[in-house]
Amino acid sequence: MEQNQSINYAAELEAIGKKAKIAAEALAVTGDDVKKLTLERMAFRLEAAIPEIINANIRDTESARRKGISSAMLDRLTLDEKRVRQMAEGLRIVAAQSDPVGKVISRSTRPNGLEITKISVPFGVIGIIYEARPNVTSDAAGICLKAGNAVILRGGSEAFYSNQAIAKLLNRGAMDAGLPDGVVQLLPWSDREAVKAMLKLDRYIDLVIPRGGESLIRMVTAEATMPVLKHYKGVCHLYVDEKCDIAQAVKIIVNAKCQRPGVCNALETLLVNRNIASEFAGVFASAMRENGVELRCDETFLELIPESKAAAEEDWSAEYLALVLAVKAVDSVEEAVNHINNYGSHHSDGIISSIEENINYFYGHTDSSTVYANASTRFTDGGEFGMGAEIGISTDKLHARGPMGADELTTYKYLVRGTGQIR
Amino acid sequence: MEQNQSINYAAELEAIGKKAKIAAEALAVTGDDVKKLTLERMAFRLEAAIPEIINANIRDTESARRKGISSAMLDRLTLDEKRVRQMAEGLRIVAAQSDPVGKVISRSTRPNGLEITKISVPFGVIGIIYEARPNVTSDAAGICLKAGNAVILRGGSEAFYSNQAIAKLLNRGAMDAGLPDGVVQLLPWSDREAVKAMLKLDRYIDLVIPRGGESLIRMVTAEATMPVLKHYKGVCHLYVDEKCDIAQAVKIIVNAKCQRPGVCNALETLLVNRNIASEFAGVFASAMRENGVELRCDETFLELIPESKAAAEEDWSAEYLALVLAVKAVDSVEEAVNHINNYGSHHSDGIISSIEENINYFYGHTDSSTVYANASTRFTDGGEFGMGAEIGISTDKLHARGPMGADELTTYKYLVRGTGQIR
Repeated sequence: MEQNQSINYAAELEAIGKKAKIAAEALAVTGDDVKKLTLERMAFRLEAAIPEIINANIRDTESARRKGISSAMLDRLTLDEKRVRQMAEGLRIVAAQSDPVGKVISRSTRPNGLEITKISVPFGVIGIIYEARPNVTSDAAGICLKAGNAVILRGGSEAFYSNQAIAKLLNRGAMDAGLPDGVVQLLPWSDREAVKAMLKLDRYIDLVIPRGGESLIRMVTAEATMPVLKHYKGVCHLYVDEKCDIAQAVKIIVNAKCQRPGVCNALETLLVNRNIASEFAGVFASAMRENGVELRCDETFLELIPESKAAAEEDWSAEYLALVLAVKAVDSVEEAVNHINNYGSHHSDGIISSIEENINYFYGHTDSSTVYANASTRFTDGGEFGMGAEIGISTDKLHARGPMGADELTTYKYLVRGTGQIR
Repeated sequence: MEQNQSINYAAELEAIGKKAKIAAEALAVTGDDVKKLTLERMAFRLEAAIPEIINANIRDTESARRKGISSAMLDRLTLDEKRVRQMAEGLRIVAAQSDPVGKVISRSTRPNGLEITKISVPFGVIGIIYEARPNVTSDAAGICLKAGNAVILRGGSEAFYSNQAIAKLLNRGAMDAGLPDGVVQLLPWSDREAVKAMLKLDRYIDLVIPRGGESLIRMVTAEATMPVLKHYKGVCHLYVDEKCDIAQAVKIIVNAKCQRPGVCNALETLLVNRNIASEFAGVFASAMRENGVELRCDETFLELIPESKAAAEEDWSAEYLALVLAVKAVDSVEEAVNHINNYGSHHSDGIISSIEENINYFYGHTDSSTVYANASTRFTDGGEFGMGAEIGISTDKLHARGPMGADELTTYKYLVRGTGQIR
């Protein structure tokens, strides 16, 4: 892969940007029938090139193995026939969703006779910067295409050859359906200097979505001159209120923490009302023991659960993504909400309570994209919300908050129809 | 006014940010009755302090006069009793609008019984950076308050003392209504270093709205680490198609160019189909002459209108904000749209045509917030769109596009209600 510092990124990116813009102009007026056909052709291209994709993937996994990455990481990176077929199937599922473009959001006729129609339209060109598995290349491109957008992708360096192969096939699939070259492009470099140069392309890129760890997000936020929608970490909380069904609370906690600890909507910090702390601690501790969860506790719980470790200040804002849980006693729902708003990441936070007043307080004051009462935080997900495929979960407040589907990848414009009106 | 480079902006801004955040937390759960009362109290405070405001304004206008600013600028800066009463009246009009917060955007019950409600909520703290007249201080604070947000304002240095007086009164009005100190704050410094430091306060400020010229917008976009909604320039176009009512076209052009040339939705470039150029030129040129409009023409129109000047390349992207108009012949609606997408600012652009097919092409392909057919571009305005008061006109695509009212100053969150659901 090219990492030559002497590459003139600006000039090459200008060409990539122009190509994407031309593709986006065509996509903006492409009907849903052609978009469906395009997604079908993309799926077909992937399935017809399974050996090619797997060969490219082997270059990535071999190089990763030489660098000594963890077996969990290696597993996420590896593609086999089944995984490629799943990517193709994902594209077909997106194809079948309803068209997010051309929806009439509102329509009014003004007293002077002007007809004003607010209608959903694609953004244009979306830049996606990600670090994750190679299937994101296909998932992200597909959902952007459904919303009428061209994409410029920049995947993680570990999946460089896999991503190149997949992106090339997707773009060819779009051309098979009669769309111009440039619907799907992947940066041919994987170093950060190239990303920084990409983040200055505000003439061509309408929106950038970074998905990844803290340092990536900070860099994109600092460098980008176009709008950014962050998909940031999930430091998710549950607060166990002084009146609640403790057995149910423990079931919810076990699910939120253990069902899939490596994802952003998994539980990271548990807050418990001090009045039920001792009653709660026994059942809770044994459930955590059974599930192999390491506890990092405040003084109260350190005393109640002797096998636990003491929490340090950094535990309150940690996204463990592992079987580790921070636990803290609080005096009230107010203290719980304060803690969540200060230490959390505004992702998914919940209360477990049978006191309606406290649930309402929690709903009103918790500044998170998704606020739960008496359910696991693990439901923050486009599929679970009934959106179909999702591009991720926005931790921003602007435009899209929480799970983002194809609808959230559109903007709108006003069409005004007159008969000679002047002001 | 303080411009001492040795001020520790970071520390002072931290205090301002914290105060705003606390105010925003209170506002997030403040009902519309109290918000109405707050706006009334703010209006009352302004009216009760007219001499104080005018005295502060005199300090600004005297210093501006010494610096030799233009009489148009001086007029915009000057406050008299009537203008202060208009500011108060503006707050009362916003008070009477419907509450944008707490609207149920969607509600669904999932197959597992989870009830998901998507509800509009305030952003929290909004930063507004502006260069314009001191009445913006009151208008912007009022509309942000209606949407449940605290504001941190940074006005132009010319209006420093006026803005300080107004902001202090508005904040006091909010306290009269029982809200905490910090609902309305104005930066006590007016130099750019202070703004740059403010733009790093992403811990406290949820959204920044810059309103002003190109250099201000570029600086804010480059420096801000929180989301930005730009209110940028309007390089607005009209395209006169080959079939249309020429008399009506000229009436629309005169209105769009001349009714108020100094605003962002005024016409700056006229495109005319080559096939009607000579028929059009006579009527058009005499109307422009009557209205004192200077024409900067391409070769075709330079020949047809001998008294016009030749346009230079920079004329095609100029926002004159004056009685100057760039004029160019094009071969087709396609060329017109291409020109608009390349040289325009995605604000307000229109077609004048009686060919339905061309109107639809123009609607579909023009990448602007508001796209007109057979009407003046001057209608892009919150009031004209039926939104009530507006905070400005967004030239961004993310979140809000075109005129922005109180509704656009809200975000949303998902409230999920369960009965013990786990995944």
